[in-house]
Amino acid sequence: MRIGILTSGGDAPGMNSAIRAVVKSAIYNNMKIFGVKCGYRGLIEGNLIKLNFSSVDNIAEKGGTVLKTSRCPEFMKEDGRKKAVDTLKKFQISGLIVLGGNGSFKGAEKLSKLGINTIGLPGTIDNDLNYTNYCIGFDTTLNTVLDCIKRIKDTNSSHDKTTIVEVMGRYCGDLALYSALAGGGEIISTPERKLSFDDICEKLNKNILSGKKDNIIIITERMYDIEKLQKYIEDKLNISMRGTVLGFLQRGGSPSAFDRLLAGKMGVRAVQLLLDGCTGRAVGIRDNKIIDVDFKDIDIENHNKKLEYELLNMLL
Amino acid sequence: MRIGILTSGGDAPGMNSAIRAVVKSAIYNNMKIFGVKCGYRGLIEGNLIKLNFSSVDNIAEKGGTVLKTSRCPEFMKEDGRKKAVDTLKKFQISGLIVLGGNGSFKGAEKLSKLGINTIGLPGTIDNDLNYTNYCIGFDTTLNTVLDCIKRIKDTNSSHDKTTIVEVMGRYCGDLALYSALAGGGEIISTPERKLSFDDICEKLNKNILSGKKDNIIIITERMYDIEKLQKYIEDKLNISMRGTVLGFLQRGGSPSAFDRLLAGKMGVRAVQLLLDGCTGRAVGIRDNKIIDVDFKDIDIENHNKKLEYELLNMLL
Amino acid sequence: MRIGILTSGGDAPGMNSAIRAVVKSAIYNNMKIFGVKCGYRGLIEGNLIKLNFSSVDNIAEKGGTVLKTSRCPEFMKEDGRKKAVDTLKKFQISGLIVLGGNGSFKGAEKLSKLGINTIGLPGTIDNDLNYTNYCIGFDTTLNTVLDCIKRIKDTNSSHDKTTIVEVMGRYCGDLALYSALAGGGEIISTPERKLSFDDICEKLNKNILSGKKDNIIIITERMYDIEKLQKYIEDKLNISMRGTVLGFLQRGGSPSAFDRLLAGKMGVRAVQLLLDGCTGRAVGIRDNKIIDVDFKDIDIENHNKKLEYELLNMLL
Amino acid sequence: MRIGILTSGGDAPGMNSAIRAVVKSAIYNNMKIFGVKCGYRGLIEGNLIKLNFSSVDNIAEKGGTVLKTSRCPEFMKEDGRKKAVDTLKKFQISGLIVLGGNGSFKGAEKLSKLGINTIGLPGTIDNDLNYTNYCIGFDTTLNTVLDCIKRIKDTNSSHDKTTIVEVMGRYCGDLALYSALAGGGEIISTPERKLSFDDICEKLNKNILSGKKDNIIIITERMYDIEKLQKYIEDKLNISMRGTVLGFLQRGGSPSAFDRLLAGKMGVRAVQLLLDGCTGRAVGIRDNKIIDVDFKDIDIENHNKKLEYELLNMLL
Repeated sequence: MRIGILTSGGDAPGMNSAIRAVVKSAIYNNMKIFGVKCGYRGLIEGNLIKLNFSSVDNIAEKGGTVLKTSRCPEFMKEDGRKKAVDTLKKFQISGLIVLGGNGSFKGAEKLSKLGINTIGLPGTIDNDLNYTNYCIGFDTTLNTVLDCIKRIKDTNSSHDKTTIVEVMGRYCGDLALYSALAGGGEIISTPERKLSFDDICEKLNKNILSGKKDNIIIITERMYDIEKLQKYIEDKLNISMRGTVLGFLQRGGSPSAFDRLLAGKMGVRAVQLLLDGCTGRAVGIRDNKIIDVDFKDIDIENHNKKLEYELLNMLL
Repeated sequence: MRIGILTSGGDAPGMNSAIRAVVKSAIYNNMKIFGVKCGYRGLIEGNLIKLNFSSVDNIAEKGGTVLKTSRCPEFMKEDGRKKAVDTLKKFQISGLIVLGGNGSFKGAEKLSKLGINTIGLPGTIDNDLNYTNYCIGFDTTLNTVLDCIKRIKDTNSSHDKTTIVEVMGRYCGDLALYSALAGGGEIISTPERKLSFDDICEKLNKNILSGKKDNIIIITERMYDIEKLQKYIEDKLNISMRGTVLGFLQRGGSPSAFDRLLAGKMGVRAVQLLLDGCTGRAVGIRDNKIIDVDFKDIDIENHNKKLEYELLNMLL
Repeated sequence: MRIGILTSGGDAPGMNSAIRAVVKSAIYNNMKIFGVKCGYRGLIEGNLIKLNFSSVDNIAEKGGTVLKTSRCPEFMKEDGRKKAVDTLKKFQISGLIVLGGNGSFKGAEKLSKLGINTIGLPGTIDNDLNYTNYCIGFDTTLNTVLDCIKRIKDTNSSHDKTTIVEVMGRYCGDLALYSALAGGGEIISTPERKLSFDDICEKLNKNILSGKKDNIIIITERMYDIEKLQKYIEDKLNISMRGTVLGFLQRGGSPSAFDRLLAGKMGVRAVQLLLDGCTGRAVGIRDNKIIDVDFKDIDIENHNKKLEYELLNMLL
Repeated sequence: MRIGILTSGGDAPGMNSAIRAVVKSAIYNNMKIFGVKCGYRGLIEGNLIKLNFSSVDNIAEKGGTVLKTSRCPEFMKEDGRKKAVDTLKKFQISGLIVLGGNGSFKGAEKLSKLGINTIGLPGTIDNDLNYTNYCIGFDTTLNTVLDCIKRIKDTNSSHDKTTIVEVMGRYCGDLALYSALAGGGEIISTPERKLSFDDICEKLNKNILSGKKDNIIIITERMYDIEKLQKYIEDKLNISMRGTVLGFLQRGGSPSAFDRLLAGKMGVRAVQLLLDGCTGRAVGIRDNKIIDVDFKDIDIENHNKKLEYELLNMLL
């Protein structure tokens, strides 16, 4: 049995750990395993390489993806996907593991309907896939965010000042939410529980009056114009403060232990599913158990984090 | 209602995050909360301080424990425990949260029998408590171990050499096991699945013959004389190699996101249990859910990690 | 002899190491040493505390400043400065060590003229003081910048893309220059050697054509509108790329070994100068030797980095 | 002109930065540059590869050495060196840059006498070469040591305990000395200023009596039996304490900014020296200026660190 693996969409720390696990367990199961370079583009262009133990030696600890990734508009069209299938047939590859986010899974689902057995592995720092508690990359980025905030706190507490910190997440507030739960900030606004400018001012003012002068306000990207928010608070509370966008450094870095373990377990399951003849399924983790669900049951809309938001009330 | 919190036994990263969560949620619930300094010794000596928001400001990210800890032989005796109860009565404290490992829980259980409501929070880097998937501190130490191994790998791969790395864990192999699962090593021996010197040589030789010349052999402390093991391998395989004991740096450092979150959730539950009049129970996490169990159901012997050891076969 | 120390302006990593060294060597020399809280504001408000060994215990490794800092408009006026002198007289303090940047030194110079012996220690991550090779904080921030760039490179090389990285430095290009010299980027523009949009495009295009597709363009803050620059390059070279502003996280974090050592040596010299009855002088390091110069010989304009820019030609 | 570069002896962080600089500036000067694999062994076995820009792309930030290194007994003999010269002649290589410590320089000196122009670059974490203020790798390891000590301090201060920390350095005390100067420890013993067991006890006792209960005792490797020292102190002062050997993790890790810059400047100078027809010289840095000296003027015995030891008196 010959299978392939590709990484697609934005890179996430832990992708290399997943590639390693897939290659190791594929070989353990007597499969031949091919790496597709640069995501779906590599499928279209026939850019594949044979992978073996030495291909994945010492990569588990590396950020990014050794297979490279891309966003590929051509694959959005039927014609592109036909080329991809032709490539897979040429290489006699009957199963494909796709490591990426929601967009990448949509592509995988279409390939599945074209007769290629496809399995998805959730690799995205945004943690915006509702079927799994954690995506590969989220824990690393969360640690990076908390490390950045720790640095910012050095300055905040030296100056008795407040800083707005904008973190990634696209339309999902998990990075902001978990950062706050972990004690990384005093005020938080996410797409799931959005605060108005006045709400934020009120909370901040309450903190300052109670003697807590260095505050971190964590917000998810795409929610506000951060400069406007800063100006609004400064004017309303008559203070001077700052805002910072953490930006692209959140994506990179050596993966955390959690992400490396998660990627390892998920990678093994993905190979097992292909062995079992499954297709159109995404691997996840729920309640500490590795699961798999049909692609059509995946949603990025409905994030039920009630318990976590209740905890916030007590911990902030 | 007045409650107390103490940290006991070896310190673990995340203890401060737990203290913060306990204080915040105690105040949220209109309790008065006291910190006992230096573990059970502080109880005996009456060394308590009132805690409030500012006591726990910006401590979630700090390693160690701001309340300090100790091992206290006097508390092992009935006389010592009587003094401890007297102190608690003097301070009108009816509930006590104990943050520590198995030994600390034994003490808490005895206090419970003397009429003090006690709740345990699992804080130990060894992860050797069988009732909970994770203890506070384990994830941070695992990340520290993997970071150290990454550094050692730089030298190993520059010299094409192998290094034996001894990690902590007392009688529990989890630190070694998870490090290996995460891709931190090629050969692993733990109390739960101990390899003989010859087993290790055989595996190492197989790797070297297949072209993998830089190997990490991870072993749990207290299993072997590491110098003897090194000498045995060198003689048998006619190679030169090295051994290193990671040592006490594994205990410290700023807690990881995972440990900070875990400590937060567990701390809130501990306060809730005291509110509900419970006693003699330890908080844990199982299958991603916060749980609590009776102290008498806690064991450090039986670590069922079958699934993980099966995974190892595929991932090493 | 009684002396004081204050930190002023923006905080910088290593300030605490300097405070520790000043306190330790003041006590060694039988002086009494006072810490002024919140910079010059503390002088005006009489907010001083006595410092001793335990005040500086385990602070050398902490970011920010335990004495806190501020910008103080009142001190800009003669009236404010008179209040400051009154405070110092009240505390019988005859010598003051000021830890900060150019603005803080201007204040110190004025105090010196009012009869207070003042000595400056250069604490600024911008490294924009021309009389010293290095300011306290610069090396730490340089390491932070390189660490952030390393993370960004993970994504760049996974996507074969280029990122513009804006670093701090006010009007001084050292952070950008040294980051590039250290191999942190392929193209660099600083106030001292500014590239036009077209220069940048030309260099980038040359790299891409030669096969180097993941590039880092490092720019100093305040030079360009980063979004305009990104758009310009994208349009001209018909590529997709990204820009990121590292922002306030560059200020914080535990100081590097270099900054801790530098702060230690400089702190000792500052105390010695006060012992010797000197005033109006700033401590620096030149050619690996601790020096001191008159405040009036300090300039932030003339940065002679010819050798370094010549090196760049070879190393990029 | 065709030149070669090899790394020899123990690896050190920053070696890759030096390789990058040598390759870049060699190409800038229209030379052809070859990398010798595995140190002198590669010379004997003819294991050389052509290096170009892409060979050194993104390696500046990597620990270890991409050229690999070894200790090579065969090269100690005349016969081995003759083979090495033959290889160089076969490849028409007239100049060789050797990156390593004192032992590697001895080999380079002998090659020089056999008619090969050789230049040495000092790469060793021990900093034990007397002609240069800093060797490549020392600053990174110093940061690693301070980071480890910071972790150990978390535990020490939680338990009010003292730990002995043994650091690397062979017969040179710089790592211990600079760690202590940077505020990493309270008591220090180095080959250059060795304390007796009783000296250490006396200092420690003084600290404990003055209220400083968590102490770090830094010692250089090869000086004492650390377990005996621990036992001696425990018995004499009637305390419980700990000892830890930092070990091989000190060698690895991503190089610091300082080492990356130093390696860059030194690498450029090495190429320039070969261009100028020089041989038998080692590159160093003294008083912040890149220098070069004759191999015969290098010594590892005489470390004049008077100033630093005087500073210690004030800073501990």
